[in-house]
Amino acid sequence: MNVFKFVSPEIIFGPDTIWECGIHAVRLGAKRVFVVTDKGVRASGWLACVLESLAKNGLEYVVWGDVSPNPKDYEINCGSIQYIENSCDSLLAVGGGSPIDAAKAVALLVSNGGKLSEYEEVDSITRPLPPIIAVTTTAGSGSEVSQFSIILNAPEKRKMTIVSKSLIPYVSIHDPNLLETLSNQSMIYSGVHVLTHAIESYVSKGATPMTDLFAINAIKLSANSLRQVKGGSRSKELNHCLAMANLNAGLAFSNAILGAAHAITHQISGWFDIPAGIVDAVLLPHVVKYNLSANRVKYSNITEALGENITSIEDGSDRVIDAIASLFRELELPDKLSDLHVNLNLYPILAQNIIKDICLVANPKQMELNDVIALLRRAY
Amino acid sequence: MNVFKFVSPEIIFGPDTIWECGIHAVRLGAKRVFVVTDKGVRASGWLACVLESLAKNGLEYVVWGDVSPNPKDYEINCGSIQYIENSCDSLLAVGGGSPIDAAKAVALLVSNGGKLSEYEEVDSITRPLPPIIAVTTTAGSGSEVSQFSIILNAPEKRKMTIVSKSLIPYVSIHDPNLLETLSNQSMIYSGVHVLTHAIESYVSKGATPMTDLFAINAIKLSANSLRQVKGGSRSKELNHCLAMANLNAGLAFSNAILGAAHAITHQISGWFDIPAGIVDAVLLPHVVKYNLSANRVKYSNITEALGENITSIEDGSDRVIDAIASLFRELELPDKLSDLHVNLNLYPILAQNIIKDICLVANPKQMELNDVIALLRRAY
Repeated sequence: MNVFKFVSPEIIFGPDTIWECGIHAVRLGAKRVFVVTDKGVRASGWLACVLESLAKNGLEYVVWGDVSPNPKDYEINCGSIQYIENSCDSLLAVGGGSPIDAAKAVALLVSNGGKLSEYEEVDSITRPLPPIIAVTTTAGSGSEVSQFSIILNAPEKRKMTIVSKSLIPYVSIHDPNLLETLSNQSMIYSGVHVLTHAIESYVSKGATPMTDLFAINAIKLSANSLRQVKGGSRSKELNHCLAMANLNAGLAFSNAILGAAHAITHQISGWFDIPAGIVDAVLLPHVVKYNLSANRVKYSNITEALGENITSIEDGSDRVIDAIASLFRELELPDKLSDLHVNLNLYPILAQNIIKDICLVANPKQMELNDVIALLRRAY
Repeated sequence: MNVFKFVSPEIIFGPDTIWECGIHAVRLGAKRVFVVTDKGVRASGWLACVLESLAKNGLEYVVWGDVSPNPKDYEINCGSIQYIENSCDSLLAVGGGSPIDAAKAVALLVSNGGKLSEYEEVDSITRPLPPIIAVTTTAGSGSEVSQFSIILNAPEKRKMTIVSKSLIPYVSIHDPNLLETLSNQSMIYSGVHVLTHAIESYVSKGATPMTDLFAINAIKLSANSLRQVKGGSRSKELNHCLAMANLNAGLAFSNAILGAAHAITHQISGWFDIPAGIVDAVLLPHVVKYNLSANRVKYSNITEALGENITSIEDGSDRVIDAIASLFRELELPDKLSDLHVNLNLYPILAQNIIKDICLVANPKQMELNDVIALLRRAY
């Protein structure tokens, strides 16, 4: 019976809602929109839809279109200068987590000034941000509904997690049709990212009865969609299902925070510039093994949500690692950090950054430096 | 796979969160707060807590403390004049649905002008409202999270339902301790109100996968709490459970709208000045009987959520009316409109207003004037 808070953007979900982004920008008072995206989205054709919708609604825009995966602090500084030089008054991010996180960070700098590293403490943003609209083209990061922006501190090769209600986009658009341009492989990586978000937020110390509803639903939906995509299916229904899983997982982790798998992933993906979703998946079974005793009831519920029949809480929780690992084997995911070309010798340095990551605070079981290093070795 | 939207206020939930209202008012830029409440809340002592929190945070306030049950349009006009004459800049409603709906309507008039009847069309509010904080002292109306404000058009004896995103409070505070001052009877009426909100929003034409999660959870939680309260239990855990049910049902119906039971209740409770929750309960079994064929799967899920074991969708949906009626008998609720001193001769006039009520549009099965009159006769 703890106190909790729950925040959510205005959510627009459904086929063809990408065409609504111009209307929402007008409603939010935008005149000149800073459009943040990346190369992949430009190639997919979705950027063109967004720009057409803005133009149809009489809006001017500037496109900042080369955000890199794992966006870097120096990129954000450049973006902020462009936003100001072009006299923009609002932002529209279209893409996966990288463009959306980058747009949030630009919005933060242009309104509050200073350096991103000054905002690493939770809720340390004081001045209001310009309106942000997020259009997600993947089903993975959840950034379009979350309080998080994760940016690489490039000189330190360390990911900074900035957490604040102010970073929640004003409007979050979830158009399942946008998943059509993802390859089967990308759909699987997206879905696994959703699943790890859902599992970590469900057992997080910050979990609440509200986030639990979303997390457990996201586990069911993502596990089910992943199996079908792996089986060769692609359909509008599957896109819908995975987009809904992503929305649910995003609302869960935005309000419940995550855990050790994400704390570790942030730092590994940042250092080696590897996509976060795949690192998460390698780590998850090891993290669950470490955490299991902290909440057997919830781990048993996870086993059930993954589609297994269980006979008791003991049975369900005993089988959770197998359930996750067997799903990941079915999906043919890498299962060792060494497969991702992570350098074992760097573990002591990485571990120093990992124990400072805000997600580690929410992990259901306390984790010290030595525990992190031991876990990294087991996952190698 | 329809398009849907989902909106929610910032939610603060938990014991003693009533003391946070001053902090949130400061954060929203308030200097002079218009506090809206009623006689019962003043007597309960909760108003004093709210005022203490405002004063501690250096805020000035004016108390408008006599909102009536089923608030009337002429009251709102008086409240608006007081708000303006006292140079207020924000509102804090503390109470059940009546003070919260009244605060929303005052906020609407002082910012957008005109008459309330000009805003009966969905989303017809154009200018931003001053910040509203809602502190709910009951677990029934859900107004503290909803897009609705329901005000009696006194000359016409007709309830007006105003629906707009702009009416969602900025911050909604749910402190389960506040239920301690409710009598057992009031707890039961509150819980039944929550249950009818949850059931009607679950089968509404406006239901979405997001609102379904909340609605089905609210059915489980409220049915369970109601049985315990009737059995003589009162505890912090039960208050927590019912407050959570109310929050979930409120988020469900705010986004999914309701159905025929509420359309009819609005007009009966408005005309005869009877508490809405109890009229709902009398009508619900009759409305479910009328609607049953429209969605057997969902009605079967409701039977299960009410705590019954079911063997199939047919079995579950066949037994939903019995499940509801038997719970209501257990709670010793009135089961005929005649018990509420509703005048049979007025049915034709009431029915004219009922078919104009916005909630009827969302009812899962089309309802014409004759259907409404026939249902009213059966419920007499």
